Amino acid sequence: MAGEHSFFLLDEDKPREACGVFGIYAPGLDVARLTYYGLYALQHRGQESAGIAVGDGELITCRKGMGLVSEVFTEETLSSLKGHIAIGHVRYTTAGDSTIENAQPLTFHYKQGMIALAHNGNLKNYIELRRELSESGAIFQTTSDSELIVNLIARTSTNDLITGILETMKMICGAYSLVLTTGNRLYGIRDPYGMRPLCLGRIGDGYVLASESCALDTIGAEFIRDVQPGEVVIIDENGITSLRPHQRGRYALCVFEFVYFARPDSVIDGLNVQSARYAMGRQLAREYPIDGDVVVPVPDSGTSAALSYASERGLPFSEGLMKNRYVGRTFIRPTQEMRDLAVRLKLNPVRERLAGKRIILIDDSIVRGTTSGKIIQMIREAGAKEVHMLVSSPAVTHGCHYGIDTSKKGELIAASYSVEEICKYIGADSLHYLSLSGLHAALASFKSEDLCDACFCGKYPI
Amino acid sequence: MAGEHSFFLLDEDKPREACGVFGIYAPGLDVARLTYYGLYALQHRGQESAGIAVGDGELITCRKGMGLVSEVFTEETLSSLKGHIAIGHVRYTTAGDSTIENAQPLTFHYKQGMIALAHNGNLKNYIELRRELSESGAIFQTTSDSELIVNLIARTSTNDLITGILETMKMICGAYSLVLTTGNRLYGIRDPYGMRPLCLGRIGDGYVLASESCALDTIGAEFIRDVQPGEVVIIDENGITSLRPHQRGRYALCVFEFVYFARPDSVIDGLNVQSARYAMGRQLAREYPIDGDVVVPVPDSGTSAALSYASERGLPFSEGLMKNRYVGRTFIRPTQEMRDLAVRLKLNPVRERLAGKRIILIDDSIVRGTTSGKIIQMIREAGAKEVHMLVSSPAVTHGCHYGIDTSKKGELIAASYSVEEICKYIGADSLHYLSLSGLHAALASFKSEDLCDACFCGKYPI
Amino acid sequence: MAGEHSFFLLDEDKPREACGVFGIYAPGLDVARLTYYGLYALQHRGQESAGIAVGDGELITCRKGMGLVSEVFTEETLSSLKGHIAIGHVRYTTAGDSTIENAQPLTFHYKQGMIALAHNGNLKNYIELRRELSESGAIFQTTSDSELIVNLIARTSTNDLITGILETMKMICGAYSLVLTTGNRLYGIRDPYGMRPLCLGRIGDGYVLASESCALDTIGAEFIRDVQPGEVVIIDENGITSLRPHQRGRYALCVFEFVYFARPDSVIDGLNVQSARYAMGRQLAREYPIDGDVVVPVPDSGTSAALSYASERGLPFSEGLMKNRYVGRTFIRPTQEMRDLAVRLKLNPVRERLAGKRIILIDDSIVRGTTSGKIIQMIREAGAKEVHMLVSSPAVTHGCHYGIDTSKKGELIAASYSVEEICKYIGADSLHYLSLSGLHAALASFKSEDLCDACFCGKYPI
Amino acid sequence: MAGEHSFFLLDEDKPREACGVFGIYAPGLDVARLTYYGLYALQHRGQESAGIAVGDGELITCRKGMGLVSEVFTEETLSSLKGHIAIGHVRYTTAGDSTIENAQPLTFHYKQGMIALAHNGNLKNYIELRRELSESGAIFQTTSDSELIVNLIARTSTNDLITGILETMKMICGAYSLVLTTGNRLYGIRDPYGMRPLCLGRIGDGYVLASESCALDTIGAEFIRDVQPGEVVIIDENGITSLRPHQRGRYALCVFEFVYFARPDSVIDGLNVQSARYAMGRQLAREYPIDGDVVVPVPDSGTSAALSYASERGLPFSEGLMKNRYVGRTFIRPTQEMRDLAVRLKLNPVRERLAGKRIILIDDSIVRGTTSGKIIQMIREAGAKEVHMLVSSPAVTHGCHYGIDTSKKGELIAASYSVEEICKYIGADSLHYLSLSGLHAALASFKSEDLCDACFCGKYPI
Repeated sequence: MAGEHSFFLLDEDKPREACGVFGIYAPGLDVARLTYYGLYALQHRGQESAGIAVGDGELITCRKGMGLVSEVFTEETLSSLKGHIAIGHVRYTTAGDSTIENAQPLTFHYKQGMIALAHNGNLKNYIELRRELSESGAIFQTTSDSELIVNLIARTSTNDLITGILETMKMICGAYSLVLTTGNRLYGIRDPYGMRPLCLGRIGDGYVLASESCALDTIGAEFIRDVQPGEVVIIDENGITSLRPHQRGRYALCVFEFVYFARPDSVIDGLNVQSARYAMGRQLAREYPIDGDVVVPVPDSGTSAALSYASERGLPFSEGLMKNRYVGRTFIRPTQEMRDLAVRLKLNPVRERLAGKRIILIDDSIVRGTTSGKIIQMIREAGAKEVHMLVSSPAVTHGCHYGIDTSKKGELIAASYSVEEICKYIGADSLHYLSLSGLHAALASFKSEDLCDACFCGKYPI
Repeated sequence: MAGEHSFFLLDEDKPREACGVFGIYAPGLDVARLTYYGLYALQHRGQESAGIAVGDGELITCRKGMGLVSEVFTEETLSSLKGHIAIGHVRYTTAGDSTIENAQPLTFHYKQGMIALAHNGNLKNYIELRRELSESGAIFQTTSDSELIVNLIARTSTNDLITGILETMKMICGAYSLVLTTGNRLYGIRDPYGMRPLCLGRIGDGYVLASESCALDTIGAEFIRDVQPGEVVIIDENGITSLRPHQRGRYALCVFEFVYFARPDSVIDGLNVQSARYAMGRQLAREYPIDGDVVVPVPDSGTSAALSYASERGLPFSEGLMKNRYVGRTFIRPTQEMRDLAVRLKLNPVRERLAGKRIILIDDSIVRGTTSGKIIQMIREAGAKEVHMLVSSPAVTHGCHYGIDTSKKGELIAASYSVEEICKYIGADSLHYLSLSGLHAALASFKSEDLCDACFCGKYPI
Repeated sequence: MAGEHSFFLLDEDKPREACGVFGIYAPGLDVARLTYYGLYALQHRGQESAGIAVGDGELITCRKGMGLVSEVFTEETLSSLKGHIAIGHVRYTTAGDSTIENAQPLTFHYKQGMIALAHNGNLKNYIELRRELSESGAIFQTTSDSELIVNLIARTSTNDLITGILETMKMICGAYSLVLTTGNRLYGIRDPYGMRPLCLGRIGDGYVLASESCALDTIGAEFIRDVQPGEVVIIDENGITSLRPHQRGRYALCVFEFVYFARPDSVIDGLNVQSARYAMGRQLAREYPIDGDVVVPVPDSGTSAALSYASERGLPFSEGLMKNRYVGRTFIRPTQEMRDLAVRLKLNPVRERLAGKRIILIDDSIVRGTTSGKIIQMIREAGAKEVHMLVSSPAVTHGCHYGIDTSKKGELIAASYSVEEICKYIGADSLHYLSLSGLHAALASFKSEDLCDACFCGKYPI
Repeated sequence: MAGEHSFFLLDEDKPREACGVFGIYAPGLDVARLTYYGLYALQHRGQESAGIAVGDGELITCRKGMGLVSEVFTEETLSSLKGHIAIGHVRYTTAGDSTIENAQPLTFHYKQGMIALAHNGNLKNYIELRRELSESGAIFQTTSDSELIVNLIARTSTNDLITGILETMKMICGAYSLVLTTGNRLYGIRDPYGMRPLCLGRIGDGYVLASESCALDTIGAEFIRDVQPGEVVIIDENGITSLRPHQRGRYALCVFEFVYFARPDSVIDGLNVQSARYAMGRQLAREYPIDGDVVVPVPDSGTSAALSYASERGLPFSEGLMKNRYVGRTFIRPTQEMRDLAVRLKLNPVRERLAGKRIILIDDSIVRGTTSGKIIQMIREAGAKEVHMLVSSPAVTHGCHYGIDTSKKGELIAASYSVEEICKYIGADSLHYLSLSGLHAALASFKSEDLCDACFCGKYPI
């Protein structure tokens, strides 16, 4: 979850994913260390904070901090986390609320002992539920919906935790992939719409849960299957138990996982992310066979689509923009006078690839449009004759009800301006977005109604 | 409060105080900075963690960390704490539970907004109350009784916070001095027994609450009066409102505040701490007019009593033990082989003051006796002919029900051994403790039944 | 320079570059901040330490620390560096000698004031020169050849610094690109062989020196020209003065700058690095037209050559190995039991691109061969039918006399084993290196004798 | 040494000592850890930086940092310092030059290997010697005279180090106590005037050198004797060798060691520091038998003299000013508006001891007079009827040629104003300084010509 319910944060001109979660039940293995590596593989899903909670059958010990996984944990802290169950979490940077209180996993004492939870997603009825709980005297240390979920589970676990989880799932509504442990059991929960990914793997005699399959690969675990929408997976010494308490609603996996969020080497609900992006590039080629000399991606987000676009069209592909590999979060931002440097610090045009050429520039999405404009200006200054911009997903016209801060909706350029206006604003010779039907064609392994594409069309699944 | 309910922690051979609290309501002043200096004056009451929460009428912002006040706060963090109300807290080091989660102030969202609380004391019925709350679905992030208090207040504040506070005071039982803010009001609360000190002062047009008056002096505030046992003080734009909802029970101020905890320059419930210690030294002189050549204190705890003992007896006073002024908390402890260094790192005998002399060694208390034994050995090695030890308070024979970890009771040397046995154990030529009646004589401004002296006699006030 | 004269360090199976240098003379601009961004663009040349020294006409102030540029500098330290001349340095991680003493710039007081120096390169006659100086009573704080250079300059500057620099250039022999400042002048010096790159640019009314042109681009400076081999450039209020005191020897730019070290968007001595790499890939296609289904690079080092190889051959290019973008220096290494994870943490195969295919795997170089072997194993496990490895540079058979630690020479796999043996060791179906003549063909803008290719053939230029 | 040659730094209204040094040769013992504890005992001589260099017979490893000994060293750094010889250093805070470059020990490579040095003192002919060395081409990383000394030793050690040391001692002139190691031998050197203390002790089969004997006591070493003025002590596997190469000049131990610098439990050149201070207090009582009600010290510097003054006069002694025991270096200073708090943060008057009384206030010295004025004001505000100030040393009228920054001389209040004027400035009812002859009487174990008292009378020994 994101404390501020901010899903599309536009600072870097890309939507922002919420979080990555990881869980492991593996007696005999160093579960803290494996969680460390698993989170490291999920680092792209969140760079603000990282945390690991380990259970040894009774106690749960938790360590978390601000920053990258590699910054938060030391050999010493990892070594201090002993047990056979672990859950972990990485959280995305969101403006203004970057405090340790919001780092996860959250750990709580409740009447039956301790509980630790890591959450990816956002609740739609957070405010109502929190108001209700507050009325009955509950207090909260954070503004996160994750803390709310634990409160609900604690209140409804009159007899046992499972009952509490199932009751809570009836009450909450929205996107959530959860991993949870009581110190002797590991739970994986995916909301009935399956909005956020969650998959299950095997390592030795144990089991692993992760937001993306790349985390399984990284620690050498074998992929078993995706957790199903509305499914509760319980892992303990008896192996895996699966509960499917709820009528399945509409399956509505977030399509932006394929467009931008997930790592290309992950497979989500049966589809490899890179394959999806290659297909989007090919579809783009069919829809917009632009006459150009060279296909150039905005690295790294546009690379996959640009490769397949170039291949489909038989055009040369060139790395015409070089990305500084050391772009990091603690970077000192340029002062006002040096503002023009901001994009150059991240990207540098390669004149030899661009000068005198008609450039087909490809990116995966445009949110605010400010960065795109600066990139196109740099490409022109490097001598390009023409710059045609292609976007391998449709225009983002609607806020996300499962996360976006609605006050920011005005920042969605495509919500307020036409494609022609945006083209002019970013200074391109032409601009084209992949059509929504083209996106669905590229993701043909999914029925179109099984994906949430509300940010492109406004049809909200819930 | 102390998470582990550990009041007498014997590591350093002294009882350990719980905490220091501070609060200020002062529109127009830099309340965060004044709280910083106030906590700095209260640093002797707790060195484990420090924190400040500031309210600006709506929001409460809190910063806390492990270590001394001067280590936790920087110019930058202080500057970020804007508002007109602040509360602060310093917490004592207790074994094994030294984590940031237990640092205070605690801040919570409850149904009417935010609340921040700082607590000095320990509840007697913590376990029962927590069990009750857990049964009704409450969850806890810490094991502290402070978090419990906020939960109780939130649940009972059906109409307003005052009602909640008064209801909560009916339910909780034990020692507590609390400062609390909702961001627009400052509250000071002292338990009906007045076990922990809390005083009230004026600064400009504003008001200050503090565990000890030395914090008022340090920031230039004027002492008004002590908060009364069972009193709730409410400070806002209307000035001070005082509620005395409860029948006053037995007044039972902790006598160890005068023996050891408080700073000599503080005045608690009408008595200056240094005056009390001087009186204890004089009383000791009357009870035990030992025949010696020189009076030597164990610095700094025994200095006041030693000065008045020497003066009363007409004997020379000498600083025969020199204390290293840089003794600090992050010090690397000697290895097993170097174990004998442990005391020398802190204290060094001055041979010129000791050799060939009959030493009257004075300390304020003995808890485990291990340090006393090592000091006496050093004094003998420096050439003393005799070492007579006098203690300016009675023997600690009983655990503290308002804090002590009962599993540690076995460590109270006087609970298990006679004075003769302790004398032998520490290697003194003679050993004498101030009598309980002598202690009361020294604290004659209090009726004897108005002080809690249970650790000396087992008569628990609650 | 690298303290230990370690050029090819094989830990990561790549040769290690020495350092990056940057200098700026620009009254009126924030030279410290511009140096920060310049070093940020040169970060790939060294991640161990970073430093900036600023001169204000009289005093030189220096700040340096271990880690990345973004880790070493804060807004506060940058703001404290006031002046109109700055030099900066990034240093590569070398085993065992990673201490702050070796961080640069080095600053010294000498008879005419202060001097600060940043050095990229290695002296061949370091040991002899240091012995001589020691005999005459000189003392050294480090084992770096950079400190030696300053000593030589100080001793030979009988009248003025220029004389000292020119005399020193007569004495030292090896690779060096130096930036140096006395607080009122900026000097750029490139060794007579031009072994390490150094270029000159203009920003406003000021001038910039940098190891690579990408640093000029990043700060918005305009490229003027490369500093010539054996040239001394002097920049002050009179503009640029150029001295060419020495007979030019053999021009011998290190060819590994094009193979691996430099950033693709840089232009060195007239040739764009990415163009060079594309040409190497094309040449590789001509020499080894392997029959395969898909061309896969080892990211990021093999990407450029793989793209041009695929294009030249008309074969599909695929990102079949996904690199974790958060690979960092403080990463906790896997334990022995988890050893197999080491490569997976960095690279993950994309099964969808590899399964059932004949893979043409392309990297820029192989040093020890251990990583290559693990990558090929991963690709086979992902289902590849065949794996043919192509290397876009010749086999590294000789140590580097201008840096390499000769004790490590045994680690150069191609120094001891034939191509067939290496092919078997790494488990490839076939293995081919670009021929030396092919490399020269790819770098046709240089006369072959103007490049140092000693590591491939043993013909040392000095 | 102090980089800036600043001896009397007046910020805290006390002169500032230069440094503390420690050395140990003890095969079989953990010399780094013992040095840590030794430096900890010498912490009062310098709080700016701390460092330890350890030799194992060949290599010297050094660790140093800014701050207190307990802040600079961790268990990990201590454990990494392996060997049988160690030297250590603590350096005093001096304004504006508080950088890691000036931290000691300094380590250098010279022609015969490595050398590490720690220095307490200041050279008088530093500037001339440095100019000479610079002329011959030497370079310096710091402005410290310690680096100069190593340079001189390196240049004059044509055959062996001893020759170099003896030659260097002929050239340098001023105050210096040095410990030095080549990794297999430990050297202790005291200047021919014996201006700074240095003593020798035994621990097991090994030996210890320290600025003060309290460091020997702390680590359990036995005091042997003081190193003699002009003596060079060499310690290695052959035991102790002593060289006395120079004609002894005038013995001129700095009298301020007894007045303020040294720890009361140390014995310097035969005299216990506390005994000296008690004698000064008694002498003060003879010279100025003021009619007062109570004797109050400025803690801690005035405590010893106040105790003996009160005892000699038969007057009561009271701790009328309470010092905050947590006064530390990283403390956030009050803003301008809160300026009046500055003294209260450190000292708080105890009204009960002061109100209605005639106070005899005793301190060891007055340098600028600003703090004294504020203390007297606080005492008056606490209700004192009269405040008579007594100073247990003569007025500081002259700068120190062996350290003081002459630009600061104007800050010596007694250099510019009469006692009457100072009395008025600080607001006392009367003010008296101990007479110079009285000081000598108190230090009667020394011939008056064997002490440097130039700061009181201007008679410089060199």
